[in-house]
Amino acid sequence: MLVEQRLAEAAAHPHPVVRGVLEDVLLAPGKRLRPAVTIASGKLFGKTSAPLHAMAAAVEFLHTATLIHDDVVDQTDSRRGEPTLYSVVGNAVAVLAGDYLFAQAAATASETNNLRIIRLFADAVRTLCAGQIDESARAGAERYELDRDAYYRTIEAKTSALFVLACEAGAVLGEASFAQTGALRCYGRSVGLAFQIVDDILDLIGEEAVLGKPVGSDLRQGVLTLPMIYLREEIPTAILEAAFADNGEREAAIDTISGLARTSQAIERSYEDARAHVREAIACLDSVPSGPIRDVLADIAGSVVERRG
Amino acid sequence: MLVEQRLAEAAAHPHPVVRGVLEDVLLAPGKRLRPAVTIASGKLFGKTSAPLHAMAAAVEFLHTATLIHDDVVDQTDSRRGEPTLYSVVGNAVAVLAGDYLFAQAAATASETNNLRIIRLFADAVRTLCAGQIDESARAGAERYELDRDAYYRTIEAKTSALFVLACEAGAVLGEASFAQTGALRCYGRSVGLAFQIVDDILDLIGEEAVLGKPVGSDLRQGVLTLPMIYLREEIPTAILEAAFADNGEREAAIDTISGLARTSQAIERSYEDARAHVREAIACLDSVPSGPIRDVLADIAGSVVERRG
Repeated sequence: MLVEQRLAEAAAHPHPVVRGVLEDVLLAPGKRLRPAVTIASGKLFGKTSAPLHAMAAAVEFLHTATLIHDDVVDQTDSRRGEPTLYSVVGNAVAVLAGDYLFAQAAATASETNNLRIIRLFADAVRTLCAGQIDESARAGAERYELDRDAYYRTIEAKTSALFVLACEAGAVLGEASFAQTGALRCYGRSVGLAFQIVDDILDLIGEEAVLGKPVGSDLRQGVLTLPMIYLREEIPTAILEAAFADNGEREAAIDTISGLARTSQAIERSYEDARAHVREAIACLDSVPSGPIRDVLADIAGSVVERRG
Repeated sequence: MLVEQRLAEAAAHPHPVVRGVLEDVLLAPGKRLRPAVTIASGKLFGKTSAPLHAMAAAVEFLHTATLIHDDVVDQTDSRRGEPTLYSVVGNAVAVLAGDYLFAQAAATASETNNLRIIRLFADAVRTLCAGQIDESARAGAERYELDRDAYYRTIEAKTSALFVLACEAGAVLGEASFAQTGALRCYGRSVGLAFQIVDDILDLIGEEAVLGKPVGSDLRQGVLTLPMIYLREEIPTAILEAAFADNGEREAAIDTISGLARTSQAIERSYEDARAHVREAIACLDSVPSGPIRDVLADIAGSVVERRG
């Protein structure tokens, strides 16, 4: 795939230290979900082109940059069963490697020679960062009391913005009409919401062996997600307080909550929300040309709620 | 000044947490050296324009983003006598705020509607980051044994690249000729080298009250700079080893080295190198139109070696 080739080229930096860091993150196996969405969004309109492939690669560079910085922000040691860059090279170099990949993403997006794309790119990055700041800067009671609306505002910014960029940039490069571009934005937003809700469910009740990371990292970060917002109605407040307290009782409280969640209504309610977003995403596609490419986009939406890790 | 107005506009984010963070860093007083260079580089050719002011602001956003992440990388608590964003909001939010400002810089650079500028911008960010990774990833003996050539390679990437961007972008927007654009690149490179050498001298022997930060932070980070490369020839290796060792003797060793440096040849040799770069910078300006704007650029170059903090 051309995107893989671009990732390999970007990793081949002349400086050995920089190259080592980039190889670590760019050559790791991944689903390449977002670049696939970009390519499909462009191909829907019958166009494949060098700019479309450049943009798909830019989206993956950007995604990789955000993962690296997310691991710095959350001090995450493993992801998909592998040590994170943060855990291997430390805070300083991981921050700089993420910065480098943001710039790589911007440089690659500029290869589209399309100023509208570059503006979409820069706006998406601002939205992503503001969403992450919103989540990371919550303190004290704000954390316990987070409601469903505030959760949705956060994930729309921190997760959907990248899917929206992936879709909209593909549509713009495919020279889609205004209405069709809007349809793909709508698809990207809903896929992003579904993706993040499932991510948050798995963080709470997934199997560590499949996830490749410890269960309960959101609670450990003091972040309340949709399944916890629902579960909060079913469990005593004291357990939640214990899970958020940074002391010796925290791990036991997180285990208890994860166990309670498995048999709760909260998980099924969260999955139902995610499935509703998948249906929305597929409905958004009604106005774009039918055929095998649209089916690929529908399948991608469906796959988001079926993953286990 | 229009750049100040743009910084204030960017700080006025609708989200209160994000706004608080941005106000902290964007409204702090600063020399605005780099945007002044951009404006002057454009005005040299008789053009002032909205794109030139946008680019000047983009350069300052980028500079601010790099300062925030430098403080994260070095875990710096104060800068110019004020607590750093890192020390106030912590590692996580400071990383994200820097990311936000990188995106703000990219969005502002895209207001120039000039793809060449956007490519220069993205390439400069990659160069800056690779330079910082180079410095931060050095370990063990590499740190002690750093030579003058390796030091210059690092500072050319981590510091000059931003001055080169500031100059070159101004020249491109001013529609300078190829040769004149090259002359301004040359100026920016030399000013950047002089700036960084003086920064490194002041870090070693400056007055804390003027610097607004503790002396010896480079040594504390295990980073060898030009004055130390020269001083290494004059002092016993054991003292340098003690300054690099992360134990109880480090602070005393740093004090000793700072004291030795003040009366050493190393400082004067470093200042002589910095002054040579200022002369180079001014010589680079020979081929651009003479007049008050060129004089401003020459004055900026000269001011770099005269600062005390």
